Amino acid sequence: MTQKDLKTVAVIGGGLIGASWAALFARAGGYLVRAWDPSEAARESFADRADKAAKQLVQLGYRAEGSVTVVETLAGAVHGVDWVQENAPESVELKTKLYREIEPAAPQGAVIASSTSSLRWSDLSQGLAHPKRFILAHPFNPPHLMPLVELYGQDDEVLARAEIFYRGLDRETVRLKREVAGHLANRLASALWREAVSLVEEGVADVADIDRALVNGPGLRWSIIGAHMAYHLGGGAGGIEHYLQHLGPSQERRWKTLGNPQLTPELCAKLVAGIAEEAAGRSIDDLEKERDAKLMATLRLRTKQ
Amino acid sequence: MTQKDLKTVAVIGGGLIGASWAALFARAGGYLVRAWDPSEAARESFADRADKAAKQLVQLGYRAEGSVTVVETLAGAVHGVDWVQENAPESVELKTKLYREIEPAAPQGAVIASSTSSLRWSDLSQGLAHPKRFILAHPFNPPHLMPLVELYGQDDEVLARAEIFYRGLDRETVRLKREVAGHLANRLASALWREAVSLVEEGVADVADIDRALVNGPGLRWSIIGAHMAYHLGGGAGGIEHYLQHLGPSQERRWKTLGNPQLTPELCAKLVAGIAEEAAGRSIDDLEKERDAKLMATLRLRTKQ
Repeated sequence: MTQKDLKTVAVIGGGLIGASWAALFARAGGYLVRAWDPSEAARESFADRADKAAKQLVQLGYRAEGSVTVVETLAGAVHGVDWVQENAPESVELKTKLYREIEPAAPQGAVIASSTSSLRWSDLSQGLAHPKRFILAHPFNPPHLMPLVELYGQDDEVLARAEIFYRGLDRETVRLKREVAGHLANRLASALWREAVSLVEEGVADVADIDRALVNGPGLRWSIIGAHMAYHLGGGAGGIEHYLQHLGPSQERRWKTLGNPQLTPELCAKLVAGIAEEAAGRSIDDLEKERDAKLMATLRLRTKQ
Repeated sequence: MTQKDLKTVAVIGGGLIGASWAALFARAGGYLVRAWDPSEAARESFADRADKAAKQLVQLGYRAEGSVTVVETLAGAVHGVDWVQENAPESVELKTKLYREIEPAAPQGAVIASSTSSLRWSDLSQGLAHPKRFILAHPFNPPHLMPLVELYGQDDEVLARAEIFYRGLDRETVRLKREVAGHLANRLASALWREAVSLVEEGVADVADIDRALVNGPGLRWSIIGAHMAYHLGGGAGGIEHYLQHLGPSQERRWKTLGNPQLTPELCAKLVAGIAEEAAGRSIDDLEKERDAKLMATLRLRTKQ
């Protein structure tokens, strides 16, 4: 592949998500990445963060020869690119202001994709001259390791391009049929955590034990089959139909008993103490290293299957 | 090890859970297992089910030389055993009736453990002459592959014995500090599924896409770190304390927007159709085989870590 065939991608917002995307675009996609952040400190530390992610990608077998260049201006980052991945903080005002600067400086054919985890397309697309080419493309953190990318947009052709782009980076894309704050994954995570917090509040089990139950029970299962499919198999030979007929009513009764906690200072203190016990002296950095090592082993296993 | 050192375990209730336990007790623990079920048909087909599970255990490296014998009477199954694992259908009446027969026939030192997923210790222990030796020991299906065993009882010494017993079978035990219907894992699963069902009802995404988001996003993460720990790492350098301070209020707002679906005939039909689409012609048996193969690969990976 010659340099001429390589396409350019702009990464706007150079925190952890931006650096992780940049590494993936360069190492898995072979793209020429131009990264920009309004903060000089973030621009200066960007290469280190991206390098760390790139090393993990190389260990996973991704060795495409793209490149990551940090540039001084937003216009310089998006000039002539095919794709813009925006990773600014979660503020409609801040993001829409950025889009007003991106749009005139980027080619009209470039897709503008926001990594937003919680904001809505209809709010973010306000003020864009060409909203059709704007999409939400929400990764699960860290994007260079986690496969999921949740897509939402209003133009089928642009969404089809997004599927080709992200799948080309070995991501698993899921299209939302209508927009909802938190998309799918963070809503599911939030629903589960509400009950996990309630179990701490109610004194049923310690933070560490709840986490251990999840990792050795439902979490392990959901890394292999989804929640709907799990109940299909839970229905025996009759599948989901049998499950819903026989156990649907008991699920509805269970739903009524699930917790609805308030994050009071007392409950927060319990959660903080519980995490300290679970961490058992390991720093955030130690814990992240452990998580990444296990995650990478699981990803290697998946590519073999 | 001579036959004299091997201990005996009774498996009461010979469905899938019972057969899976029996295989684990024999192959991972080297126990002499005596199994009984009131149904003659279940007794006749028991060996096949247990063999299937035992073969998977052998593939995972469990080659202890225990044995599984199906016996004709309940008294014959529990006579002289060290442990009773009861796996009858989820009915307080049915289970307590069984305990009334088990108790006089089993040694007084034997622990009676119920695999119940939804019933309470205080209901089930009614009528036992020696309730202290009665515990809940809820496995996650299938017990010979899934590591989690949730324990609840009221005697510390018996619970400590249970931890030694199940951990000796490479299970991960979690002790509940107080009883609650559904223990931890099924409550967490139920909370997540409620939102997954709501997302189908609201037309946000198809069944298959919701499952795919889970397996490639939060499910994958929760097979490695728990939900509480995930938010600790989501708080950056400030950990859970920073997370709760800055994002606690937005979690509370999100919780208020989570769905509360009713399993109406229309919604059930949507779920059934969605699963049919996701299964794409694969039978329950095909899907189980796929699940087990992936699960076994993940379990092999864990033992290496």
